[in-house]
Parts: sequence; structure tokens; C-alpha cells
Amino acid sequence: MKVAEVISIGNELLIGKIVNTNASWLCGKLTHLGFKVRRVTCIGDDLAEISSTINEALNRGAELIVTTGGLGPTFDDMTLQGVAQALNLPLEVNEQALKWVKEKYEQLGLPLTPAREKMAKLPAGAIPIRNEHGAAPGVLLKLKGNRMILCLPGVPREMMQLFESSIPLLTEGLTEKFIFKELSFKLSNIPESSLAPIIDEVLRKNPEVYIKSHPRISEASPIIEIHLSTWVKEALTSQAEQKLLAVKRMLVDLAEKSGGRLLE
Amino acid sequence: MKVAEVISIGNELLIGKIVNTNASWLCGKLTHLGFKVRRVTCIGDDLAEISSTINEALNRGAELIVTTGGLGPTFDDMTLQGVAQALNLPLEVNEQALKWVKEKYEQLGLPLTPAREKMAKLPAGAIPIRNEHGAAPGVLLKLKGNRMILCLPGVPREMMQLFESSIPLLTEGLTEKFIFKELSFKLSNIPESSLAPIIDEVLRKNPEVYIKSHPRISEASPIIEIHLSTWVKEALTSQAEQKLLAVKRMLVDLAEKSGGRLLE
Repeated sequence: MKVAEVISIGNELLIGKIVNTNASWLCGKLTHLGFKVRRVTCIGDDLAEISSTINEALNRGAELIVTTGGLGPTFDDMTLQGVAQALNLPLEVNEQALKWVKEKYEQLGLPLTPAREKMAKLPAGAIPIRNEHGAAPGVLLKLKGNRMILCLPGVPREMMQLFESSIPLLTEGLTEKFIFKELSFKLSNIPESSLAPIIDEVLRKNPEVYIKSHPRISEASPIIEIHLSTWVKEALTSQAEQKLLAVKRMLVDLAEKSGGRLLE
Repeated sequence: MKVAEVISIGNELLIGKIVNTNASWLCGKLTHLGFKVRRVTCIGDDLAEISSTINEALNRGAELIVTTGGLGPTFDDMTLQGVAQALNLPLEVNEQALKWVKEKYEQLGLPLTPAREKMAKLPAGAIPIRNEHGAAPGVLLKLKGNRMILCLPGVPREMMQLFESSIPLLTEGLTEKFIFKELSFKLSNIPESSLAPIIDEVLRKNPEVYIKSHPRISEASPIIEIHLSTWVKEALTSQAEQKLLAVKRMLVDLAEKSGGRLLE
């Protein structure tokens, strides 16, 4: 399974002004496309920080890096410069990107300025992706060894459209497709600490299923959401669904013996 | 100003099941306490990953690290083990923490089990912080050179209470207090790309103020939120407020010359 990392760029994230909904949306999408997201990093609008974070992710073995933020026209939009620096590539005007940016501003009756042209300066060899809602194109870089970096804007609507548009490019190199299957249910009447040894036991018998408990109220009046998940090759999807149901049954049976109740 | 990092731990973040509201809440709190948050990292429930992420943050010079998640009773709650491993400290039962955990379960008429006792096993030398809403205490570690690691649970209500309770400990070493001041306003009728050179000009004249533009609609029908912020020493708070107002005036004047309008 391919390993992905998400890098969210913007000072507004680090002062708590913005909740990083982009990252959770991307994590969900990547997971369901069959990528294993191993890390999300939020950093500020700082060139050295962007470039070192990209290099750290590559050194950790990330096969896909998705960045959000920092593609716009202002001085502190420096994602592409950071990516170019990390990869030791020059930034150059991409003709396709420039055409799109020009068209966008011609529609608005506005001339091409340096701030606008900046959005068409991409790391050499990058593939621009058309932004339907804004001016800054998305940017896909294919690296050696089937690795990729996808740079998306921070505005959620633009980010989502550009990610969706990129999916064919992101998945075309995948020789076997993995599917993420999940199943949630709630138990009441049993504290998480009583459930812990039960989860351990079920896990030992089913190491391929990941089991996570989320206490929803408190240990005193507990409702615990249990989340089961597994990744399988596409051909084995129905087997995986059966497996999750079997694990649920096993867990519920054991929990009921300790006084727990399944909430339907 | 002291540099802080936030480390959010939990597979549920990486599959997109949960939006990381804990991180944005903590970033806001830390910023307003006068810390500069430089990075937020989300990782999975993986011992090696937790321990290396703690070490990376320390190596980057973080003076305060706040972790969330992974303090509970289940097998995959391994934050304290990861912290202990990073710092090369043994985990040992903390008598104060054990007393609180015991009391909690006595109130529920439940015995102490290994899963429950686990929540009282802290890295040697740690200070436990009382959890009013749940069973797992918060954990504060004071390291050499006035550096600290604060470990909080992932359940938001518990995380918030434990952070608030820790504030006196987090700030007692601060010799000079920094205050974060911010000011937001909205401009319409001017695209972000036209505002970019104006922001550049105002920034050159006011390098101590950080100016960020957030397009709220699109380049075609733009409303742009401008966010001004600055950190100052406590004694200079009222000067900072004046400064932000002056920068706002300067920006609005220039924007109006380019057709922009201030939205009140």
C-alpha cells in the first residue's frame, strides 16, 4: 500500500484561527483511495520550513505528498518556491498554467500583473491542474520511483475540486488497488477500561483488523464507539466485510458477558 | 518568545474520521499565552512514530511540546511509552496518579485492573495533573533548559480542562510575557491579486505586523478578510493596538484607491 503524507501550510493554522478541515477531508479521501496516510504536518508560511518539511516527508519514504495552502498571489504564498527548493528544481513559467491564469483575469477585465503571473510559475516539469473556482492552478510533480507531490490551494472549495481532478493521475501508477473497509457500533454500560482487555483478546485473534475505541461520554456513564477497519485488496472486499461483521460479533459477545450492551 | 509544537496522536485523525479541533483549540490558547506555535504534527498510534516525533520536535528547538491522545487504558494508548522512550526514562507507577485513578474507579464500584493501573504509569519524574472528567491524568515533564512536555488526553472536554489546569505550570518560567494582538476586517471589490502588491508595500513599512489575506468568495466576486496580528511584550499592549489600527487605515486607504471597499 502506498504511503501518503499531508502538509498543511499557513500561519492561520498555527494561531488557531482556522480548523484544519482540509487535512481531515484529504485523509478520508486518500484512505478510501487505498493510500495509507502516515502523517499530517501543519507549518507556517516560511520558505525554509516548507522546503525542509517536504524533504523530511520524502526521507521518511512518503510516496505521495499532498500540500494545501500557499499557492495564491501574495508574498507569503510560497509553497511552490519551497517545493522547488526541496527538489533543487528551478521555478519557471508554465505556458498552460499561464494561459489559464490569463483567461481567468481576462474574463474579469483585469491585466496580467506580477502577482498574477506568479501563480503560473511552477517547479520545472510540473503538471498544472485546472482550477475551476479560483485562479491558482494545482500542481502535480512526478518524481523518480513513482513518487508524487500534489500542491493544492488552501481554499476548501478549490482544494476539493483540484484533488478530485487529480485522482486519475494519483492512481494511474497503482498496480493493485487497496480498499478501506470500516464498521462502527456503540456499546453502553461498560467502561473503556473494562473493554481494553476484551479488545486485546479479539485483536490477537484478528490481527488484520484495526480496532479503536472512542469513549463518547465518560467512564462514569459510558457510551463507547468501536471503530473497526481494515485494508484489503480490491478483489477481497466482500470477505473483508464478512470479517468486520465477525469481529463485531465476537466483541459484542464478550462485552455482553461483562455487562455491556450493544446500542442499535 | 517560547516556541511550542503540538503533536496529535491517533489513527482516527489519519483516516479522516476526526477533524483535529484539539489542535486548533490548543494553537489558539498557546498563541494567546504568548507561545509561538511552529508546527502541528498528527501521527498514528505507533510507538516508534511517537518517540521519533518527540525527538524531532526537541531537536528543532521546541521549548514546549503538547501532545493529545493516547493516554487511555487500551493497548494502542501508548503516548507515555513513546515519550519515555524518546527521553530514555523508565515508566513507573506514580503514587499520586494511582490514587486519583483508584478513587475514580472506587466511585464507580470498580476494582483496579492492569488496564486501569496503566493510566498511572508515567515517565519517571513526571508531574500528574488531575483529570476532572475522565480517568487518565494529564502528565507534565520538565526537562533541562526550561523545556516541557505536556501530555493531554484526546477527549476534547478532558483535554481542555487539563490544559487550563496546567497553565500556571506552563507559564511560571516565563520571564517576559508576550501578548498576541489581532485585528480582522473585510474588503470587497478588489481581487486578492490586486491587493498583493498593496500588502507588500504596507508590510515593508510595518515589518512587525503580520498581514494575511483570506479570500472568502472568489476572485470574480471577491470578499477578502484581512487579518493583522503582532506579538508584543505585555507592557506594550496598548501601543500594539494603536499600531494595528494604523496599519488597517493604511491598507484600507490604498485598497480604496484601487477600487476596494471596506465592509463594516
